[in-house]
Amino acid sequence: MKSAKPYIEKNKERFVDELVELLKIPSISADSTYKKDVLKTAEAVKKQLKKAGCDTVEICETPGYPIVYGEKLIDKKLPTILVYGHYDVQPPDPLDLWESPPFEPVIKKTKLHPEGAIFARGSCDDKGQMYMHVKALEYMTETDQLPCNVKFMIEGEEEVGSSSLEWFVSKNREKLANDVILISDTGMIAKDVPSITTGLRGLSYVEVEVTGPNRDLHSGLYGGAVANPINILTKMIASLHDENNHITIPGFYDDVENLSNEERMKMAEAPFNLENYEESIGINSVYGEKGYSTNERNSIRPTLDVNGIWGGYIGEGAKTVIASKASAKISMRLVPNQDWKKITELFKNHFESIAPKGVRVKVKPHHGGQAYVTPIDSLGYKAAEKAYEATFGKTPIPQRSGGSIPIVSLFEKELKSKTILMGFGLDSDAIHSPNEHFGVWNYLKGIETIPQFYHFFTEMSK
Amino acid sequence: MKSAKPYIEKNKERFVDELVELLKIPSISADSTYKKDVLKTAEAVKKQLKKAGCDTVEICETPGYPIVYGEKLIDKKLPTILVYGHYDVQPPDPLDLWESPPFEPVIKKTKLHPEGAIFARGSCDDKGQMYMHVKALEYMTETDQLPCNVKFMIEGEEEVGSSSLEWFVSKNREKLANDVILISDTGMIAKDVPSITTGLRGLSYVEVEVTGPNRDLHSGLYGGAVANPINILTKMIASLHDENNHITIPGFYDDVENLSNEERMKMAEAPFNLENYEESIGINSVYGEKGYSTNERNSIRPTLDVNGIWGGYIGEGAKTVIASKASAKISMRLVPNQDWKKITELFKNHFESIAPKGVRVKVKPHHGGQAYVTPIDSLGYKAAEKAYEATFGKTPIPQRSGGSIPIVSLFEKELKSKTILMGFGLDSDAIHSPNEHFGVWNYLKGIETIPQFYHFFTEMSK
Repeated sequence: MKSAKPYIEKNKERFVDELVELLKIPSISADSTYKKDVLKTAEAVKKQLKKAGCDTVEICETPGYPIVYGEKLIDKKLPTILVYGHYDVQPPDPLDLWESPPFEPVIKKTKLHPEGAIFARGSCDDKGQMYMHVKALEYMTETDQLPCNVKFMIEGEEEVGSSSLEWFVSKNREKLANDVILISDTGMIAKDVPSITTGLRGLSYVEVEVTGPNRDLHSGLYGGAVANPINILTKMIASLHDENNHITIPGFYDDVENLSNEERMKMAEAPFNLENYEESIGINSVYGEKGYSTNERNSIRPTLDVNGIWGGYIGEGAKTVIASKASAKISMRLVPNQDWKKITELFKNHFESIAPKGVRVKVKPHHGGQAYVTPIDSLGYKAAEKAYEATFGKTPIPQRSGGSIPIVSLFEKELKSKTILMGFGLDSDAIHSPNEHFGVWNYLKGIETIPQFYHFFTEMSK
Repeated sequence: MKSAKPYIEKNKERFVDELVELLKIPSISADSTYKKDVLKTAEAVKKQLKKAGCDTVEICETPGYPIVYGEKLIDKKLPTILVYGHYDVQPPDPLDLWESPPFEPVIKKTKLHPEGAIFARGSCDDKGQMYMHVKALEYMTETDQLPCNVKFMIEGEEEVGSSSLEWFVSKNREKLANDVILISDTGMIAKDVPSITTGLRGLSYVEVEVTGPNRDLHSGLYGGAVANPINILTKMIASLHDENNHITIPGFYDDVENLSNEERMKMAEAPFNLENYEESIGINSVYGEKGYSTNERNSIRPTLDVNGIWGGYIGEGAKTVIASKASAKISMRLVPNQDWKKITELFKNHFESIAPKGVRVKVKPHHGGQAYVTPIDSLGYKAAEKAYEATFGKTPIPQRSGGSIPIVSLFEKELKSKTILMGFGLDSDAIHSPNEHFGVWNYLKGIETIPQFYHFFTEMSK
């Protein structure tokens, strides 16, 4: 496979412009008021896949948002790569912290991105990284170098738990049959330190509601005499961690795999600078489970974080009230062997059990997914390794990520094939945060590297 | 003094209509978007005071919202009663729990108010109870029975801490000189159990903010490795009470007066039915400080309640984020001898001291006020007792209230006179809550009783 560099050089403005157009559509799957925009984005992806060379592209209806499926099958005897990505994005709030509107993309230079980065919600997660694959296909078809069959499956519910994907995959095993699944929805350690994500954490996301009195009460007349749902909620949440920041839910750690010291030492070799880490997010000290390093805490250890909390009067000024209800959104990141459905059940039972008299507690499971680990001796991993070597001149480092792509383990179960996670974003790209961005260099480097994967995977499959 | 009953009977429709008009103006002092309405309410009160018989009425500018002052001075040698009330109201949220719009008053019959109750924000607290005094003055002037001098001071910042009132009172000691202060901004035990509030709790209201990372973070990539401001805030708040629901702030109880067993036994005689209490607010159990009864917990004991909490993603669906900040509004109800400024300082120092590394904490004092106790052997109390006996045919029960009217102790300090708290609302009137209401019977009973207080106070002063 010839290097895509010259082609990219010639077309890079257009590659960026096309992505910018896609980023202008606020495809927020978590907020139903954006339904039209989510559907509009699916249409845009369909159009681009067709232009890039897919023979057939269809918008497949699901119980939720549609899945865009496209394929170019050149020879039954050749291997087939299934590319997965998502066209939906996270909500942009808090809006006031964005330096430019989240859906009006701008390109700005940063310390880490001297060539410029595209600032917009979804620029990195995942529209930008998904679109690298569309442009890589364009390169291979335009230059007549596509070495194998390719299928695209781009969904619109990844940020809300991919609830329709399982339904779709189980109904279309034949259609989706493949030899390897390729996803770019993770990051790399640094621009000069390419890495392949070999581990992902699982997820259990729940919403809890504590109800006390049947109406808001005057905190003077009733204060001290009735359970205050907010005080109770804080007590209950606080009790979920002990003084060493271990999670106190009975049975929570039962299935957690404990890495050997050798594995932990190998992990510790990955380049990491604590000062830079703390400085990059403006904290004076890290914080977490006793007995583990920062890199271990956010990759091989399960966590419990409150993602949102609300109750009572949150307006301007003061209101002396005891709220009738208080609520919180809580997510747990899980590690291999922990089953998210079991953990969700453990959480529910425990949380309900610690509610004191005087309040009622509701636990509503939102969604979840299993953790995943890719073996580094698989064909796909070795092909990815060679692809990076070809474009970066370096062997990529296998890396455990703290994030979750719940559907990866689903794919293995339903489609019986391994997933390769080639990520080109940086941790500092602020995905899920205000001012999310994606380096233009990273974007083009992805487009350059992906065809090499197609090449080596096909070669090594012979 | 002749009974006001016939006059009230003849004018009650108008009395209700006038109050309804006043209730239509959303005078929410906590929310600056309602500034025009707050000022409009002051004008309306001025107009009504003039019509009711005040010789002079003025709208006195202050650093905050104006104070409406009116007076009718008939004879220097006669005693002077200063009536205090407030024309501002609490914010109405949560709006969705109101059965009718908070500023579109409707009259509905209820179990406790078979003669009908006026449903609207401010109907009881305090527009309705304040307006009883305006109508009582009208009765006395129209029927030529006003036995003494009267001054009105109606403010517009009571629900946000009366911050301008201290300034105003200290500047106008002469103008406000009086022999007794009369306030209706409290409740009575039941329609057939008249009571006079002899004790009020003090208040310290603060807002806290916990900041971790300088931006919202992806809870997968960073979860477990950095302090989550929401988790930390819940831990810090939860630690403010121990397992017996005692408050853990060092020095918090130092100045709390401990009532004698005799006093506690006297309190216990007030009619109280725990089942009805629990049923009226829809809880299966009361909750509070170990070693004290419900009536003690909400009157003679200090408390700490979270009035509002917010942080992270609180929209529809799920967002896997670690918020940069989390905040809460916290109020402490104080008892006699506790100094609110000292308690605020103790809270601030303690709360800042328990913040772990990795977060920064801000504590912003909102406002506060001292607790107060009226001696039941004072002239004013005895006159009030006789007034109730005249209209209810029963001796009122002295009652400690859990609520706070911070300015009562200010009045004693600045004006050297005692305050009499004649309240006609019921605890079940839902002040500060959705569907606040005020019984028409209570409203008219107040208008009937107040002139009797003028009569007996003047008589006993001779």
